Amino acid sequence: MKIVITGGAGFLGQRLARRLLQAGSLTDSNGTVSPITELVLLDTVAADGFGDPRVRSVVADISDGRRMADIIDGGTASVVHLAAIVSGQAEADFDLGMRINVDALRTILDICRSNGNRPKVLFTSSVAVFGGDLPDMVRDDTALNPRSSYGMQKAVGELLVNEYSRRGFIDGRVLRLPTISVRPGKPNKAASSFASGIIREPLNGEPAACPVPPDTRLWLLSPRKAIDCLLRGHELSAGALESSRTINIPGVSVTAGAMVDALRRVAGPEVADRVSWEPDPFVARIVGSWPAAWDTTQARILGLEGDADFDSIIRAYIEDDR
Amino acid sequence: MKIVITGGAGFLGQRLARRLLQAGSLTDSNGTVSPITELVLLDTVAADGFGDPRVRSVVADISDGRRMADIIDGGTASVVHLAAIVSGQAEADFDLGMRINVDALRTILDICRSNGNRPKVLFTSSVAVFGGDLPDMVRDDTALNPRSSYGMQKAVGELLVNEYSRRGFIDGRVLRLPTISVRPGKPNKAASSFASGIIREPLNGEPAACPVPPDTRLWLLSPRKAIDCLLRGHELSAGALESSRTINIPGVSVTAGAMVDALRRVAGPEVADRVSWEPDPFVARIVGSWPAAWDTTQARILGLEGDADFDSIIRAYIEDDR
Repeated sequence: MKIVITGGAGFLGQRLARRLLQAGSLTDSNGTVSPITELVLLDTVAADGFGDPRVRSVVADISDGRRMADIIDGGTASVVHLAAIVSGQAEADFDLGMRINVDALRTILDICRSNGNRPKVLFTSSVAVFGGDLPDMVRDDTALNPRSSYGMQKAVGELLVNEYSRRGFIDGRVLRLPTISVRPGKPNKAASSFASGIIREPLNGEPAACPVPPDTRLWLLSPRKAIDCLLRGHELSAGALESSRTINIPGVSVTAGAMVDALRRVAGPEVADRVSWEPDPFVARIVGSWPAAWDTTQARILGLEGDADFDSIIRAYIEDDR
Repeated sequence: MKIVITGGAGFLGQRLARRLLQAGSLTDSNGTVSPITELVLLDTVAADGFGDPRVRSVVADISDGRRMADIIDGGTASVVHLAAIVSGQAEADFDLGMRINVDALRTILDICRSNGNRPKVLFTSSVAVFGGDLPDMVRDDTALNPRSSYGMQKAVGELLVNEYSRRGFIDGRVLRLPTISVRPGKPNKAASSFASGIIREPLNGEPAACPVPPDTRLWLLSPRKAIDCLLRGHELSAGALESSRTINIPGVSVTAGAMVDALRRVAGPEVADRVSWEPDPFVARIVGSWPAAWDTTQARILGLEGDADFDSIIRAYIEDDR
């Protein structure tokens, strides 16, 4: 069984790859469980250090349709599509966001369709598809009203994956992920980058500026639980997704201020005091348009779980990444 | 002031053109009222019979980006985008629907954006963006969950027009129209074509087969009121559309059976008895996925009105088109 992960050299991609290699086998769209024989990690940079004969690192631009058609061939049972231009960058460069977040997705979907083997396609969406006057708790049937280019592009992606699935071109599933926190490594161009930075940098002994006010509420998921959800989301039978291919993944609803309070409890005041409050209107506007929580009944019925609280998220980060 | 109507040779396009010529002037995105000096009716066939020096009929394929850039130049104050592949045809030919309903729209939006004059763009959407387990009354914040390719393509269009407006590339407005009934002329490839045919054909002394069961509920708007709404929707100030550029236009909620009852009241039993019931699963599935009514509070606040009842719709058809 061949699996392709786009964004496979990224942090979630590499972590998912390790988990899939551990699992050893997956369920295809016919319900057949088969061993993973080839795991392609596709990205703009190489994914090194796997040392596993099943892993193939491929460096390519996902908007290069010809290369993509070579990589996602008719023997590909699943595509996990994680590659994206993140929110801050998609807002700064509209055309780049459209090219990668919309056009490249469509190219991938059309390749899957023309292959004719109805592969599974796992697509990650985002809190950013919501916006405007939101209820305290976003429901499964709350309208998408994105207030960022990234959110619009992810919303279009959701519609495409649902429709290509309805038509039987693919067996798609959309996991609408909370903001991932705590990401290891360096800040990125996501407007939500601080949601990891204000925990990660202080734990590294470095100062961190929080660009949103303390009462800004976020909806967060640890990388550990995100990987659990990706794996389970892949394994779900299509029959469980008849009303919609889109699943709201459970998060922890917490304010930026409460995140720092949790850091204080878990790591002590000296660490928490490394966070300063320096509002940035660009970031605050984008992040402030996102929902603080959404209804997760469907996810829980399907067995997809989030974290218990933000203290647990910090502890998971310390265990997994430090 | 130059106005471009795509689908300008079609039934709504021609009727709107006549109305605009009568009105003589329109409000541009700066709020300035100016006389209409040029009205381009763009379509795949010529729009004849206007005999007005302001009207220019242009035959072009809207997916031909180079031609479109010539036609929608920097002097274009408004684009009324009516051209579309209709529901039945978009379901039968997925690629054609994507090319016209998504890609050509995007080309038009990008031309408007690169012109830099922030033109008004009036885009018509549809009941078909909704689907699945719908509430009896669709709210403004009910999620789009299209169950047809046409519906998905219109939903993507709504997202694009909203986002291009938010970014200030255009001054867009999306009118989500009920099914238009009674359309004059011949049946088309829309799944909803019968919603006109079961009235028009019997009035012409011809038999008509209704492809949905009598209890199928439709959400209908007369051409007369549709034109009123298009004109008013164009004239609204952008400030009235801050929370969303999309407006649900009021319709009349009526079952197919009650439509024929109304025909009996207005035109007599001999006419109504020309309707036979011949369910077609393809049509019934698409039409059955659409909402039977939606909340129209916002439209009414903005002064956009529908018809009083279906009897009035039949009478308007007899007055305007027979």
